[in-house]
Amino acid sequence: MKLADKTSTEFIEVLVSKAAVPGGGGAAALTGAIGMALGSMVCNLTIGKKKYAEYEEKVKGILDKATKLQAELLKLIDADAECFLPLSKAYGMPKETEEEKKIKEETLEKCLKDACQVPVAIVKTCFDAIKLHEDLVDNCSMLAISDVGVGVQCLRAALYGAQLNVVINVNSIKDSEYIDKVKKETEPLVEEGVKIADIVYEKVVKALSK
Amino acid sequence: MKLADKTSTEFIEVLVSKAAVPGGGGAAALTGAIGMALGSMVCNLTIGKKKYAEYEEKVKGILDKATKLQAELLKLIDADAECFLPLSKAYGMPKETEEEKKIKEETLEKCLKDACQVPVAIVKTCFDAIKLHEDLVDNCSMLAISDVGVGVQCLRAALYGAQLNVVINVNSIKDSEYIDKVKKETEPLVEEGVKIADIVYEKVVKALSK
Repeated sequence: MKLADKTSTEFIEVLVSKAAVPGGGGAAALTGAIGMALGSMVCNLTIGKKKYAEYEEKVKGILDKATKLQAELLKLIDADAECFLPLSKAYGMPKETEEEKKIKEETLEKCLKDACQVPVAIVKTCFDAIKLHEDLVDNCSMLAISDVGVGVQCLRAALYGAQLNVVINVNSIKDSEYIDKVKKETEPLVEEGVKIADIVYEKVVKALSK
Repeated sequence: MKLADKTSTEFIEVLVSKAAVPGGGGAAALTGAIGMALGSMVCNLTIGKKKYAEYEEKVKGILDKATKLQAELLKLIDADAECFLPLSKAYGMPKETEEEKKIKEETLEKCLKDACQVPVAIVKTCFDAIKLHEDLVDNCSMLAISDVGVGVQCLRAALYGAQLNVVINVNSIKDSEYIDKVKKETEPLVEEGVKIADIVYEKVVKALSK
């Protein structure tokens, strides 16, 4: 059974448990999906409203991209779990002989890189989702603007959460070239994404205090 | 059907839609529940480990409180939805005569106050949950410390998200005494909660960079 097909109550139960999955990576992906869904909801509450007719085309474009990002984030909940199982097996491999040690190390390194790609993808997707909220905050129904703020906060949390999962994988990987590549891919997105999220949130707070 | 009994995929679908519920309040409560569940998971991964025997009693106490907060947050997803329906009905009440206007105003004011109590409760519960993460970060298995960071980020997002929902309710309420009371109840918790969450997250980042 897919994790995305569990009820919220069930997901929370299995998250709490010692079970290897879901963990922080899957939780970050779900939190990101919630964030992007709030953005999509704001699009749906803006489209078709006479008052916001001038935003219509732009918001339709945002919704189109948002729908894809949200589906991607839901997929990444389970992708995170799927990568964990081979990794867990690799940790259990024997290392009695030099030959076994070598095979175990190589297998571990490969599994760690596979596992690392999921939080890397969550970082990238959440960054794109935050950028969509940046567009949305200036082009949406004022009746739904608080939800842009909630959405962007969820994505900010998912971005940081995914990055922590990148770090724990990277900490066990030996290939320094790979580590550099992953850091260069993710760190600027996290830094910029958090900045944008904070700006969007402040705009929402300001709009609501008028 | 309860929102907490929907699958994540279904919850996201109905969140995206124009349907009045769930909205930002319910999304914040679910994000908070995910955050607290990560904290509980860290407790479960610490309890029973010889290496962390000295933390055992403390962590059991944290888990006990965490389990209650997490159940409370799951309940608040549906509580938020339940308050919205009478509010929505009140907005639809007639206001042709002075008498009707008066009744409508009074009903709206009551429904808005009821609706406001849910995000207020989410703020309080998330603050308590962040405080538990503050205890946990210094007393947990290093193998699970990244999840303390993900958990506290989810709770920070839920705290800010709930506060935005307090603000949108308060913006429509007329009773200034009630508004003052709610602001005094929530604003210091949000300010302090975010500060603590940021400190906990930084501790996690530091622990992972060793």
